[in-house]
Amino acid sequence: MTTEQLIQTDGPTGDPTDADFQISPAGMTHKARHAALDKLSAYYDRRAPRAMGYQVRQGLSEAQTLGRFLRHHINNAGDPFVDGRFTVHSRWLERAVLDYYARLWHASIPADRSNASDEDYWGYVLSMGSTEGNLYALWNARDYLDGNALVGDRITIGDGEVSRTTYTRASHPDDGPNAYTPVAFFSQDTHYSHLKGMNVLDIAAFYDMGADRYPGECPLTSPGTQTVAGWPVGVPSTGGDDGPGTIDIDALAALVDFFAAKGHPILVCFNVGSTFKGACDDVEGACARLRPIFEKHDLVRRKVHYDPADPNVYDIRDGYWIHVDAALGGAYLPYVEKAHDLGQHPWRPPVFDFRVPEVASIVTSGHKYPGAPFPTGVYLSKIGRQISPPNDPAVIASPDTTFAGSRSGLAAIAMWNHLARRSEVDHITEIVSALRLADYAADRLRDLGPHLEVGHTPNSLSVWFRQPAEQVVDAYCLACVPLNVNGVQRDFSHIYLMPHVTQQVIDEFVAALKADGYPAGAAGRKCV
Amino acid sequence: MTTEQLIQTDGPTGDPTDADFQISPAGMTHKARHAALDKLSAYYDRRAPRAMGYQVRQGLSEAQTLGRFLRHHINNAGDPFVDGRFTVHSRWLERAVLDYYARLWHASIPADRSNASDEDYWGYVLSMGSTEGNLYALWNARDYLDGNALVGDRITIGDGEVSRTTYTRASHPDDGPNAYTPVAFFSQDTHYSHLKGMNVLDIAAFYDMGADRYPGECPLTSPGTQTVAGWPVGVPSTGGDDGPGTIDIDALAALVDFFAAKGHPILVCFNVGSTFKGACDDVEGACARLRPIFEKHDLVRRKVHYDPADPNVYDIRDGYWIHVDAALGGAYLPYVEKAHDLGQHPWRPPVFDFRVPEVASIVTSGHKYPGAPFPTGVYLSKIGRQISPPNDPAVIASPDTTFAGSRSGLAAIAMWNHLARRSEVDHITEIVSALRLADYAADRLRDLGPHLEVGHTPNSLSVWFRQPAEQVVDAYCLACVPLNVNGVQRDFSHIYLMPHVTQQVIDEFVAALKADGYPAGAAGRKCV
Repeated sequence: MTTEQLIQTDGPTGDPTDADFQISPAGMTHKARHAALDKLSAYYDRRAPRAMGYQVRQGLSEAQTLGRFLRHHINNAGDPFVDGRFTVHSRWLERAVLDYYARLWHASIPADRSNASDEDYWGYVLSMGSTEGNLYALWNARDYLDGNALVGDRITIGDGEVSRTTYTRASHPDDGPNAYTPVAFFSQDTHYSHLKGMNVLDIAAFYDMGADRYPGECPLTSPGTQTVAGWPVGVPSTGGDDGPGTIDIDALAALVDFFAAKGHPILVCFNVGSTFKGACDDVEGACARLRPIFEKHDLVRRKVHYDPADPNVYDIRDGYWIHVDAALGGAYLPYVEKAHDLGQHPWRPPVFDFRVPEVASIVTSGHKYPGAPFPTGVYLSKIGRQISPPNDPAVIASPDTTFAGSRSGLAAIAMWNHLARRSEVDHITEIVSALRLADYAADRLRDLGPHLEVGHTPNSLSVWFRQPAEQVVDAYCLACVPLNVNGVQRDFSHIYLMPHVTQQVIDEFVAALKADGYPAGAAGRKCV
Repeated sequence: MTTEQLIQTDGPTGDPTDADFQISPAGMTHKARHAALDKLSAYYDRRAPRAMGYQVRQGLSEAQTLGRFLRHHINNAGDPFVDGRFTVHSRWLERAVLDYYARLWHASIPADRSNASDEDYWGYVLSMGSTEGNLYALWNARDYLDGNALVGDRITIGDGEVSRTTYTRASHPDDGPNAYTPVAFFSQDTHYSHLKGMNVLDIAAFYDMGADRYPGECPLTSPGTQTVAGWPVGVPSTGGDDGPGTIDIDALAALVDFFAAKGHPILVCFNVGSTFKGACDDVEGACARLRPIFEKHDLVRRKVHYDPADPNVYDIRDGYWIHVDAALGGAYLPYVEKAHDLGQHPWRPPVFDFRVPEVASIVTSGHKYPGAPFPTGVYLSKIGRQISPPNDPAVIASPDTTFAGSRSGLAAIAMWNHLARRSEVDHITEIVSALRLADYAADRLRDLGPHLEVGHTPNSLSVWFRQPAEQVVDAYCLACVPLNVNGVQRDFSHIYLMPHVTQQVIDEFVAALKADGYPAGAAGRKCV
């Protein structure tokens, strides 16, 4: 199909507009409402099969079979492991999904949850996607590191035992001035939701803390990157914008060492499937580098005085929290590892899961690699890392241990259905095929000539290249991001080879680029 | 139907169990998976029609017609008014829903959004329900009141202009020591998600701040309520647990006056449809009482120095933020008012919306009164109250002005479909009928005798009473909450007369209570 034909098919005449959906006080007629919904549905049918600029799966024919569950409001409010009083729930499926991911990520599964240990896993199915999971992880990390009470701790304030709010969070000068002031580290390739989470939670990024308290003392020199008071905005990625998108472990170790030496507890967020390049940080390798640094600075198994009213009360906690944002990769990397071990794939991915003892929390999205009609995902952590819920609402009779109040029971059903209808072999076949198609797409794009500056890390689902013409960007739903390559800022697009993308779509896409005169027309194109 | 029959129908043999949904590495067979889903679906069909203990609508036959949209992942990531590059979205419907609620709540709708004023509305459709909306409102309130930059403000820190994190939030001693330390006020009947939000956001509740800085100085005496250092945990509700559940405006005014006099900016959260009693605070009346207090303490149109790097730069902002948690009532109270004005209902509800000039943000749930298969809702505020997003992700080409990253496009479709298929007359008829049925249910329960201690505020959808036997609690999906009535703590349940509840279900419920020997058997029953 040529670009012209794409424009014709997708042209503005057939696309939905605001006017189609306006609601007057009289509502809409049955006919008008159905006409509007039909137009919308046809639009999605046209657009979704070629939508490959974002890491979400389309073509969810299996989810469509769940239509009968739309006639109920299914809600898992409260803890996944305490059924509570709201009977229209789907916790049986939620627990099956959590157990599945716990096995996949080598977490410890308790034989009897009423008698579980601090190292056993706890988690829940997300209603808002990985942003919710990242926020919840950061909240847990903050309260764990800055000396708040955890699940099971009881504290007494003033003349009564009350639910704690963070306002009662005490300073603990006897443990050192920085002992309860965590500092966060994340690479330049990290998703924007982390910065949002740190803003919401008032957690200092290392560069803000550095600019404020230690200007000019940064142990790194970072030529060509944005800095504040000499501190790079984000831990450098290996090889910069021109590299594969993984965190530079040497740089991370130097930065962590600096702040750990000042007595700060350390919060590190790793990426497994970064937003732009689909890069997977070497979590195991990085933690091996950080381990002696944590030991040297007494951040292992330290005493935490969490109760300002009673200095004799303390917990033993680590002075670090390793969070893994595996929004994209958490759901497929384990199958790549299995494929490798079966001799079906040449690459063994880095270990990112609970086999690494320092890892405290992992998040993955349900709507990215597995596919779901709405944002969802999985948050997994350990019982010993759970913060105390700020309140204990009798009304739902299940502890408020999650981020959301109401929690989507339909999300758990969709995630369960995806897993239940596939064997491990199915999962392995699917990801090996998607990775091969990503290599194929990179090769076909490179065939168009060197001026495209095609980027592709083997074993990533992402292929990036100079931004094409606007109508191609639109037809294939491409994202667009400025990259700093060899010191020059240029605009790039990427495609993600999610399982709904076929070789035929790739071939059509390459033909559309050719028809448009790409790459000659790419020069000077701007993202926005 | 007798309780025994209910138990038989709903007995444990027919209910789903964890074992039904376990997934092995081989997945499940097609047959086993479908058998499990059939069992689940039958369970919901049995349970949902009688589920009336929570404020969610069941019987969503109209949502079930949206099944075809499950085959796509529809995502409204970014701002509702900037379409961005992800084409598989439903912003046309989201904007129609927002405009609808803006009209319903008397917000200012700009003729041209590219040329809108600070007083014009802005908002979005929620992916996680009102908890998300309340969190987002509190985050906005915090950053507005404590001197952070807003949308459009640009600040420079160190040697480069960077995306701000809250760590750079400065203190502003020249404006008074408390000028940027907001204090939050909410009644004892407030939903537990507010306490969670304040914990996440590190906002001090007035009683924590009072206990810490002003112990024993509380201007109220609050006999019989839980206190810290003389401060009641929550603004007292009118008449305590025995009352209608509305905020005590005299108590609120006294508390706000105390903290405003100390120079603190003020954050008040009102309830419109409280969790237990469905109570609607008199927002208009309360704001009329607070207005002169704000004026007296120079909290109206104050100078805010939001840029620590440049003391000459300032905004003019109010030193207060009024948030309305209308999770339940926001979607029906406007129709009660219309019913009254048409002579169809005897009661005119208090005004809670943007006609009250102090109101900065309102949240309502889509899955409560309107009904939706998953948590959703609407957040509405004003453009002049929008905080600056912590980051500006080029990848979605739409500003990250909401709480979630990925945002459910299906949620917007479900909310739109509900509104588009009803006229204003339909909405009025539906709520008047539901309120009449609530009165009917209260009367039938009172017929059972005075020992039930039936509570019901006219014009509320909630009826509460002493907790029945466990099998009735289970069969009708009743919540259970301890109340302190006349100084004695006792366990209560409530029912919500959501539109799916019929008179027949009420009659069956009353018959089941009678068959169980209720209320004689109620003595001594405990919630948990």
